[in-house]
Amino acid sequence: MTDNAFAFGLGVGTRNRDGQWLEVFFPQPLLQPGAALTRAAADLDSDCALDSGQLQTLGTALSDAGETQQAALVEQLRASARPAVAVLLREDSAPGNVPEAYLKLHLLSHRLVQPHGTDLQGVFGLLPNVAWTDQGAIDLKELPQRQLAARLRGQTLEVSCVDKFPKMTNYVVPAGVRIAHTARVRLGAYLGEGTTVMHEGFVNFNAGTRGAGMIEGRISAGVVVGEGSDLGGGCSTMGTLSGGGNIVISVGRECLIGANAGIGIPLGDRCTVEAGLFVTAGTKVNLLDDTGMPAETVKARELAGKSDLLFRRNSTTGAVECLTNRSAVALNEVLHAHN
Amino acid sequence: MTDNAFAFGLGVGTRNRDGQWLEVFFPQPLLQPGAALTRAAADLDSDCALDSGQLQTLGTALSDAGETQQAALVEQLRASARPAVAVLLREDSAPGNVPEAYLKLHLLSHRLVQPHGTDLQGVFGLLPNVAWTDQGAIDLKELPQRQLAARLRGQTLEVSCVDKFPKMTNYVVPAGVRIAHTARVRLGAYLGEGTTVMHEGFVNFNAGTRGAGMIEGRISAGVVVGEGSDLGGGCSTMGTLSGGGNIVISVGRECLIGANAGIGIPLGDRCTVEAGLFVTAGTKVNLLDDTGMPAETVKARELAGKSDLLFRRNSTTGAVECLTNRSAVALNEVLHAHN
Amino acid sequence: MTDNAFAFGLGVGTRNRDGQWLEVFFPQPLLQPGAALTRAAADLDSDCALDSGQLQTLGTALSDAGETQQAALVEQLRASARPAVAVLLREDSAPGNVPEAYLKLHLLSHRLVQPHGTDLQGVFGLLPNVAWTDQGAIDLKELPQRQLAARLRGQTLEVSCVDKFPKMTNYVVPAGVRIAHTARVRLGAYLGEGTTVMHEGFVNFNAGTRGAGMIEGRISAGVVVGEGSDLGGGCSTMGTLSGGGNIVISVGRECLIGANAGIGIPLGDRCTVEAGLFVTAGTKVNLLDDTGMPAETVKARELAGKSDLLFRRNSTTGAVECLTNRSAVALNEVLHAHN
Repeated sequence: MTDNAFAFGLGVGTRNRDGQWLEVFFPQPLLQPGAALTRAAADLDSDCALDSGQLQTLGTALSDAGETQQAALVEQLRASARPAVAVLLREDSAPGNVPEAYLKLHLLSHRLVQPHGTDLQGVFGLLPNVAWTDQGAIDLKELPQRQLAARLRGQTLEVSCVDKFPKMTNYVVPAGVRIAHTARVRLGAYLGEGTTVMHEGFVNFNAGTRGAGMIEGRISAGVVVGEGSDLGGGCSTMGTLSGGGNIVISVGRECLIGANAGIGIPLGDRCTVEAGLFVTAGTKVNLLDDTGMPAETVKARELAGKSDLLFRRNSTTGAVECLTNRSAVALNEVLHAHN
Repeated sequence: MTDNAFAFGLGVGTRNRDGQWLEVFFPQPLLQPGAALTRAAADLDSDCALDSGQLQTLGTALSDAGETQQAALVEQLRASARPAVAVLLREDSAPGNVPEAYLKLHLLSHRLVQPHGTDLQGVFGLLPNVAWTDQGAIDLKELPQRQLAARLRGQTLEVSCVDKFPKMTNYVVPAGVRIAHTARVRLGAYLGEGTTVMHEGFVNFNAGTRGAGMIEGRISAGVVVGEGSDLGGGCSTMGTLSGGGNIVISVGRECLIGANAGIGIPLGDRCTVEAGLFVTAGTKVNLLDDTGMPAETVKARELAGKSDLLFRRNSTTGAVECLTNRSAVALNEVLHAHN
Repeated sequence: MTDNAFAFGLGVGTRNRDGQWLEVFFPQPLLQPGAALTRAAADLDSDCALDSGQLQTLGTALSDAGETQQAALVEQLRASARPAVAVLLREDSAPGNVPEAYLKLHLLSHRLVQPHGTDLQGVFGLLPNVAWTDQGAIDLKELPQRQLAARLRGQTLEVSCVDKFPKMTNYVVPAGVRIAHTARVRLGAYLGEGTTVMHEGFVNFNAGTRGAGMIEGRISAGVVVGEGSDLGGGCSTMGTLSGGGNIVISVGRECLIGANAGIGIPLGDRCTVEAGLFVTAGTKVNLLDDTGMPAETVKARELAGKSDLLFRRNSTTGAVECLTNRSAVALNEVLHAHN
């Protein structure tokens, strides 16, 4: 047994009537837990609720190991009637069950790992589809009966989401962010400090912002946006789950994607896409040099990841153009370099 | 009296202080109820709450008729203090009151009738505008007092919607769907099994999907999407309530409407609309044949409902083009057939 | 002391553990309160919770002054354990603390002042970022502990918004509006009677509609829309906070902005922007006269605020065009007038 585990979390969760986990909340997930903590949790099954004896043993071990925060959490879990679970991930391999998958999503949203920084292979198949309600997570098979029972008591069971992924903010609100409408940020999103997600913004899991930014458009699964960039209202970034094929889209630092615009290629730093313009990988682009003269016509995928570009549709000719601050010669070198 | 009624539902609802229905929840609506059930409910007023005696009589009749599920529901309603109602629709005519309108919306969302499959004439005028809150449906006249009372108790009365139509998922979640953000699917939507409505998706009433599909765009009132189609993020379909005029928009099977695109014409099967392109009925389209050569210029409305078309805006000339897999001759025949 | 104060409100609010206001709810804000009311509230500190004695004194004074509604509200506040506050704004200057800022936002949403009709200078810096939950407003520092405590009790603390501005409808629902999804209308929005905000609509603070209208697009901060106008699904208006620079965008009466379209210039009356077209200030526009002939090419900013224009992108040439009902001569005069 190695003492260098990948991550650890003590969680409290919800199970359906058959005892299957629907979701787990990890209030204080840890990356690279210490050796003593790793040893204390070594024999616990990440898929099984802890019984009272296991909690007591774990609490004592954590306390002895000087892990006072985690030990205090164990005490709180012991005092609760809700099912608790301890997940120790020895290495960063694909999640094997619901609690492990939830711990990984927490690591992202707690900013302990970056997007693409943990193995999420198979997470879609692993996570159950759940009714997220004001009475907590409910198995879809159990929902109709719960809805009727609530109605007969004069209440409405509010079903706010039916999905494999819950909203992030019911699990963690990372420091220094605003999220005007939390239903649009999934658990597993990574929001850098200083990020504002406005009402029209959206952030999928395993995606997000590296630092401060104004997000009024959609950050699809797998997409990462650099510091200081601004995604305008309703703009679109093609994700890895649908539409984007095998190109992983990203947006560099200090970019501006205009309202209702969209990108199907990754952008470098300090790029601008005009409001309303959608640039896909196959879009033919008239490249203008630093004097505004046409230098070449290329497919947008050849401009992927390059910096200091401004994309617009010429409002007189209808042609998509790209302006840059480089001379025609320099442009030519950049485009035709063997890279 | 005919024994072949159109639909039946036992509901529990909410009334304002004047005794007017605000909404009704039908946990188990029925299409074409049996003759015995129809007789048992024949004399009940669909707009009046059932009194204890009526419920008892109805329960006995249903039990005698072997309608055990409905009889069990009557027992549950009897044990509740909430107002119950029985709605028998003898035929599919325009709804006459709030409970009848709600039953029809339930029929759609329970997949008992298809969009355009039941008469909804006048439903807008019939339904009251309601404050949908975490304390249930509240009459707008009664809201300010309720809000203040909650505040004085240290609570917030959460008003999540002020509308004639509630969200579907507080009434029914049909099998085999995901709805990432339920506020965007109205009661009366029809979601085929296998449908995923992502955060940016939207489905109005009397509209929806016939089968599996990925919906990240807006399905307006009256619009139906065929199986296997994908509506990209933020895309738009013109509805019958506004903008679409008298053309009923639909989308065939295995279509792809790109992100931030839009259509003002119905699409056949296997059509694609490029991301960011809005095709209205009046858009002039350069039609290219199976060799990519220009065959004709037509208004998009002439292409309404045709299959195997790809719409794009030429990124060099700015012209809207339509590619097809047909030869110029075949195209000519299709367009100029007397149909 | 002048007797002509600008506004007054009795509120009940939420404070964090340090006694700082997070938000205040004013059920019955008043514009230009009477002299007696002004005198009664003259010595109260707008940032301090009222103690029992102050409430009693205020109630008596209001009662003596014949301000029966406000006196009755004082009695309700006295009976509550929640912190109450009285805010008297002697003049319309920049808000000085959280209760004053909230009163001003209420004035807008209660339709007591129009957008741009009250001084909101500094409101962003003044308002704290708050977690808006089903247990009310919670200080972000206190949130993790509250989330865990709820979980251990078997509840989920629903965090629906993390923002400086709450949703309007939890404070007031003005008469004669529908708001299909309330999370998208901020407190401080002004919705004219007859306004419908559909699911895809959005209204920021200090922005809104002057009268009836169908809003399925985004009304950014500072933007005002005239009566009878229709904002199509997903359309964009550039705001004063971002993107719009120093032009204040507005939309006149009876305009139609198509779905997924956008404007970066103010529109006069009876203007139309075709679905999917984004007109920014720098867009070059081919101006067509009343006979459909090209009259001139201008930047869109020169058309700012003018009426009876139709903007479209020619689907054959890709050029942005503007049609008008004026002759070439009249157009020339309008454009080149010294105004």
